[in-house]
Formats: sequence, C-alpha cells, structure tokens
Amino acid sequence: MLISNDKALKLIHPLDSLFHPRGVAVIGASNKPGNWATSGFLQPLLDYGFRGGIYPVNRSATPISGLKAYTKVSEIPGPVDYVVVSVPIEQVEGCIEDCAAKKVKFVSIYTAGFSESGQKEGKEQEARFLEIARRGDMRLLGPNCVGIYYPSGGISFSPAAPKQSGSVSYLSQSGRFCNDLLSCCEQRGVAFNKMVSIGNALDINESDLMEYLSQDTETEMIAAYIEGIREGARFARALRDACRRKPVIVIKGGSTDEGRKAALSHTASLSGPEQIWRGLMKQSGAVSAASLEEMSDILMTFSLMPKLSGRNVALIGAGGGANVLACDAFSNHGFRIPTFNNETQKKLRQFIPLSGTWVVNPVDFSPQTAGDPVLTSKAIEIMANVKEIDVIILHYMVVSWGMGGGDRAKDVAGSVSEVSKRIKKPLAVVLETHGTPDICKTAYEIKLDWIKAGMCVYPDIERAAICLGKLARYHGIF
Amino acid sequence: MLISNDKALKLIHPLDSLFHPRGVAVIGASNKPGNWATSGFLQPLLDYGFRGGIYPVNRSATPISGLKAYTKVSEIPGPVDYVVVSVPIEQVEGCIEDCAAKKVKFVSIYTAGFSESGQKEGKEQEARFLEIARRGDMRLLGPNCVGIYYPSGGISFSPAAPKQSGSVSYLSQSGRFCNDLLSCCEQRGVAFNKMVSIGNALDINESDLMEYLSQDTETEMIAAYIEGIREGARFARALRDACRRKPVIVIKGGSTDEGRKAALSHTASLSGPEQIWRGLMKQSGAVSAASLEEMSDILMTFSLMPKLSGRNVALIGAGGGANVLACDAFSNHGFRIPTFNNETQKKLRQFIPLSGTWVVNPVDFSPQTAGDPVLTSKAIEIMANVKEIDVIILHYMVVSWGMGGGDRAKDVAGSVSEVSKRIKKPLAVVLETHGTPDICKTAYEIKLDWIKAGMCVYPDIERAAICLGKLARYHGIF
Repeated sequence: MLISNDKALKLIHPLDSLFHPRGVAVIGASNKPGNWATSGFLQPLLDYGFRGGIYPVNRSATPISGLKAYTKVSEIPGPVDYVVVSVPIEQVEGCIEDCAAKKVKFVSIYTAGFSESGQKEGKEQEARFLEIARRGDMRLLGPNCVGIYYPSGGISFSPAAPKQSGSVSYLSQSGRFCNDLLSCCEQRGVAFNKMVSIGNALDINESDLMEYLSQDTETEMIAAYIEGIREGARFARALRDACRRKPVIVIKGGSTDEGRKAALSHTASLSGPEQIWRGLMKQSGAVSAASLEEMSDILMTFSLMPKLSGRNVALIGAGGGANVLACDAFSNHGFRIPTFNNETQKKLRQFIPLSGTWVVNPVDFSPQTAGDPVLTSKAIEIMANVKEIDVIILHYMVVSWGMGGGDRAKDVAGSVSEVSKRIKKPLAVVLETHGTPDICKTAYEIKLDWIKAGMCVYPDIERAAICLGKLARYHGIF
Repeated sequence: MLISNDKALKLIHPLDSLFHPRGVAVIGASNKPGNWATSGFLQPLLDYGFRGGIYPVNRSATPISGLKAYTKVSEIPGPVDYVVVSVPIEQVEGCIEDCAAKKVKFVSIYTAGFSESGQKEGKEQEARFLEIARRGDMRLLGPNCVGIYYPSGGISFSPAAPKQSGSVSYLSQSGRFCNDLLSCCEQRGVAFNKMVSIGNALDINESDLMEYLSQDTETEMIAAYIEGIREGARFARALRDACRRKPVIVIKGGSTDEGRKAALSHTASLSGPEQIWRGLMKQSGAVSAASLEEMSDILMTFSLMPKLSGRNVALIGAGGGANVLACDAFSNHGFRIPTFNNETQKKLRQFIPLSGTWVVNPVDFSPQTAGDPVLTSKAIEIMANVKEIDVIILHYMVVSWGMGGGDRAKDVAGSVSEVSKRIKKPLAVVLETHGTPDICKTAYEIKLDWIKAGMCVYPDIERAAICLGKLARYHGIF
C-alpha cells in the first residue's frame, strides 16, 4: 500500500521546482557596504555554484560582481523562477506585481514589518500580496523570512553556511534559527539537504512543506520549528504521513501564554492549545525537541546511531558520583544498567585494580586507569562482548586540572575511535569539559574526531539519556 | 530565640578543629613518581601555606621536598591533629591504631575498597576502624574519601585547586565531585571556604557536617552532594536548621533504582524512598540541583544576584524564535514578561528600526543593532527604567558565522559590563556559543569579564530560567 502510494507521489510535487529555479533574481542587491541582499542572497549563488541565471535587481541597475543588473524583474530576458525581495517595506508590493508580470514561480519576501507588527495596515498589505500572487499563479514565501537553502543546488541565505549537502531538511518559522541550527549541527556531523524559512507563512506554510518534505526522496529526516498551525486538520494529516516515512523532529514555540504572545509578535502566529499539540505529537510519532541544541543532538543521534536492540546500557563512568547520577538519568529515560555477570567482572578485574574502582556496571576506573588508552579500549571491548548489552556509553571528562586533559586525553580519544570500529555494539560518548580555552580546544578536536569516526558525542549525561531515549522510543524499544 | 541559640553555638563546634590542625601527617607519601599522597595531599600543604607541622610518613622515612619523614605517626615529636591515610588496604588498620596511640584528632582515609566493595570483609574492617577511633576519642573521615579542602588554612586535596578562598562550603559523598565542582565554579566566580569529602561516612557523616556548616560563620552558603542518609531524623533537623540560616543547595544521587544500586557500589549508601527525600527538601526550603553544572549555576546566582523584587522579566533576545522559546522557558519557571507601555516602546523605537524588530518585550534587535555596543546598552538602560521590571536578561550569541563574533562581540560585552554598573536593576546574561575554538575563546573571555563585573552568565535560556526561578522561590517571590 505504502509503496504504491510512494510511486504515485513520484509525480513531482509542485514545491519541488522551488529548489530548481532556472533563474534567480535578488531585488535590493547593491554595492553598498553591508547590503545583506548582496552578501546574504546574491553572492552565495556565485559561491555555491548555482547553475542558472543570476540577476541583481536595483533602481540604478548597478552591476554587482560582474553580473549585469536590471531595474525590474520584468526586464530580465531569461526565465526567472525564484526571486528574493529585500527592499524597503513600501516598495514590496510593486516588486510582487512586477514578478507576477514576469510569471515568476516563487517569490521570497525578506522584508519584515507586516502582519507580525500587529498593525492593521500590515495585514491588509499581506492580503494584497496574496491576491496578486493568486492571480499570477505565483507562490510566496514569507514575508519576514530568509527563504531557502539548498546547497546542492547552489542556493543559500548566508555567505558562511556549509556548502556540504546532507540528508536532513528543515522547515522553520524563524529565519535566524535556520542559521543557528546550521551552526549547531556543523560540529555534530549533521548536514542539511534543504532549509525553508516560512516567516509569516502568508502563502506557503508548514503544511505545504511537511507534505513536500515527506515525499522528497532527498530528505531522510525532517526537522521543524513551528509557532502556529494555520490549517490544523491538514497539518495533522501531513505530520502523520511524514512520520510514517521518516523521523520528524519538532520544536514547538509558544507552549505558554507568554510564549504565545511572543509568537504573535514574531510571525503573527496563533499557537493553539498545548494539549492538542501534545496529543498530535504523540499520536503521529513525531519526536519533540525542547531547544535547538537538543534538536541538534537528536538529529546527530538519529543520523549516526543504529536502531538499538534493547534498553540495556553499559557505562564507563567519570567517577563515583557521576556514575550514580548517570544511572539516575538513564533510568529516568527508560534504560536499564544491568549488573555484569561474574565472568565479565573477572575479565575486567584482570587489569582494573580493586581499590576504589568498580567493575559491576557502571565501570569506574581509578585515576591511573582512566587516562590509559589501552585499558580504556580493552574495557570497552569486554563490555561490547556482553550479550545482553545494547549500547555502550563512555563518560569522558577533559578538564583543566584533576584527571584528564592534554595529550593523554588525545591518546585515549584515538584509542576509543579505533575500538568503536572494531566492536559490534553502538558506542556513544559523553564528553564533558569545563576549563580554559586550551582545554576547550582539545575537547573540540576530540569531539570532531569522534564524530568523524561515527560516534555520537553529547555534552552531558542528561542529554545522552534524553536523545538515546527518544531514539529507543522511536524504534519501539520502550 | 534564634539569636540566643546562635550565641550558645559560638562555643566552638567540635568539628571546627578539623580545619585548624596544629600538625598534619600524610601516610603513604613517597618520592615515587605519580604518588598521589605526595602530589595531592602533602605538597599542597607547602604550596597553600599551611602554617603547622607537615610530616610525610612512609616505611623508609624518606624525606620529601626537604621535609623530615617518619616511619610512623607516633614517632612524630610535635602535635598531629589531622592525618591522611593513603596506603594499601591491608596497612590501613595498623595506621589507624598508630594514630590513636599518638592521640590524633582526625584521620581521613583515602584508601578505598571497604564496605562499598560489597564484601563482608570490608564491612568488618570498617567496624574495627570505628572501634579503634571511639576508644582513642578520634574522628574518622571516609574511608574512600579525599578529605578536606580549606584554602585559607593551607589545606587542599589537589595540587591545582584554587588557592582563593570564598564563602561557599561543600559537603560531598563523592571525592571526584569536589574537584569537578571546583573546576565548574572557577569560571563562575564562585570560590569555596571549605570542602569535605565524606566517602563511606563511617564516622563523620552528612548530619555532622550539615550541623557544623550551618553554624560556621565563614560559610555563607552550603552545597551538598548526598547519596544516602544514615540518621534520618537528625539530618532532617540539621537541614531545616541550616536552611533557616543560609541557602543550602543539594544534589541527591540515587533517586532511581538503578542510581540506588550504583550508590551502594560507590559509598555503600542506602538511598531512602524518593518521596521522603522530596518532602524533606520542600519542607526545609533547601534548593535542589540536578547536576554539578546546574549546581554551579545556582551557586553563582545566589552569590551574585540580589533578591528579586518581583517576577517581571525584561528580555533582549537573540532572534524571533529564540525569543518565543525564552518566553516559554521563563513562563514555565514562574516569571512574567510584561508588555512595555507605549512610552517605553516609543523610547526604544527612537533608535531601533521598525522592520523586523520588536520593542514590546522581548526586545528583538535587527542584525544591524544587535552588534552595536551603544544601542545595546541604551536599550538596557531604558528597560531598567521601567518601574515594573524586576530583572533584565540579555540573550547574546557568539557564533562562528551569522551574527555576533569577533571584536564586535567584545565591544558589545564591554558596553554591557559598563551599563550593568549604572543601572539599578539586576542584569543577567545568557551567553550562547557554538563554534570553533577561536569563537569559544572569545566567548570565554567575555564570560570572565561579565562575571568580574558582577553579572550572572548562563549557558542557555533554560538554565537562566531555572536558576532565577530557584532564587525567586527561595526569597518567597513565588
């Protein structure tokens, strides 16, 4: 059933052409220093290798970066399918009219200050934009949005966003969250296929994009930041459909009265009652995230971790107190920390001294052993051979003083990367660091190495337990 | 009533002499490279300027760092009030016997592997230690503990712990958490007066120390990491008394079955039912913390923040989506984000452009304004003059690309420090950073500057809301 459905949908979705324009125009691009239309939207088309026509549009038709410019979109000779509008508020309507005249397919309005301003005038302007668009069979993104990012197609909304394409796509009611999420994910080995900022979502909204991304074959996972839902029943259906096909991770803004008030100022969004939202999330199987950082860690988890075979964790801890709190955290998120049998304990005891250490699970190394690369990987290997264990966690600290730090830490890190490839159980790492910039640099390098080796690296035990718990629940482990 | 009580207690508490020994011996200190008894316990006495007698004790009476050594404590000519025992497990009993013979007042046993090993033998050995101590009128710390840290008295359990003394004291069932907490707090401007690691708490336990620290005039705030309570009624009384005098922040390990099992392996502690613990915390007015990082942020908050006059927050946010989530977080933790009146909005509008910005509260700057030091401090000043506002939050991001970063960030930081001294409302900062080591270094320096200027700096909005919520609840604001 699902398969034949999928086949039917291979008929290209109308939103797909948003990402494959034949030509792109940026209205408002100029050579004025700090002009964001140029540095944020136009220049990236060159830098990211967009293959279609690239057209700066400004009143004086000043060429930019060697590109011929035009005073109006309708003067551009070649086809223009995507236009970014970044002009003073009073000029927006004229630009949209002109785009309609040119038969542009998609217009993204960067300019803000419309319905989200709370002024009657803003709402009326938006109504006129929509009318012009409908008449011209043209679709609008925004206003109050940064548009699209599709690095494999050469389109970006920031000069410094990663050029590397990935398999996650993100739909966002916040433009800045697009940049922030890229910035968070860059260090976590998560790259994006598409990002769409919908802003006030006057025309193209969260339902359109959930439907499209659900069936987009380039998108293996969907991330979303949503403030308000415009078409409740349609969105619920789209979310359920999407969740049947791929993981969908959602941050919901406006879960409190104060948050709802802010969402109204931000994107003129009306957040519905929180219970309805929670019911929909639960029923659809979507994964909720509380913040961008948490979402980034969830995306990393779903990208790098295989499906867990069960709920049994083996843990190498960072000291006795840390072990106790780690057990509390994993237990609170649905996991078990089973005691190793005598045989396993005996194997660990062969090289872990008796005094001040544990081998029961969690395993707690003495200061001597904790910094030893050979013994750390030996312990991981023994734990990986315990049949009932489903996932191994190494809690590792790199701090300015006390245990850990410096070259010793890097040796251990290298040895952990290596053993992670040899063992047949998933290994995740909690890399905790507090200290001077030097220590942070060491930790940063270790983190990148570990992620490159395919391991999830979490900033603290709680986050690891949350993310792995969400993964296990997603796969029906508990 | 309380005053006369206090006066009675000025009769020096018996545990006070633990921190003022006339002489200290370290059994097990040798010149062997990596010997922790020497580097962790003996050498700090010299480095931190301990003024009493310092005596290395080892089998060959090898002098260390120019100090005359002895084979036994009982051979030391001068008075010895505090002894650290760091010897192989089978030698511990003999050392305790010898300390009793010398009439030592306090013995701290670093050696581990007793009752927490789960072996019958360990329990029996501990029983004998206690008997020897009782006979000799001697008190024991541990076993399985790192002893005490009292920098103003020249005593430490680590060569690299801060030498600066402060006003917070910490009692801990985890030795490593002592080091980790110091490491966390160093960056937060929180320094410690005393730390005591109680390990298995065979003799001196959490009740003794809660009673002592409660009446210790050098201690203005108490932090504790507790796994099990040995004398329930006594501890409940001690905690209630302490909370009446000063803030008490507690992390409880072993709140789940898995955590309880780990606590048994760690310090042979039996955690009681979680509901009883929660009831006690609520009833006493103690402040709970979930992790060391959270505890560090709470200690910073209670150290640097004045009592809030109410629950109204003014917020300068880090973008629209971030503002919505910030409002949700502060609302969830008991705060309000009142809309500014027209007059205040008008003042802010004079320099914050209309398009894509908000002045209602939260205030959201456009990219141009966010990086402007003058305008940032101007906005803070206007918000501080709004009568109903009780606390101002600046959410600031230093990221590799997009907004923020580099020298511009430092300019803004300096201007924020300055305005914080001028205004009459408390100002706290959320400093979010994700990026390369260079960016982290910039953020680290800004953080230290802000803390030096007396501002609380939190890693994310949620943490800020949690900590300020706990402060407000502590002061009965809600």
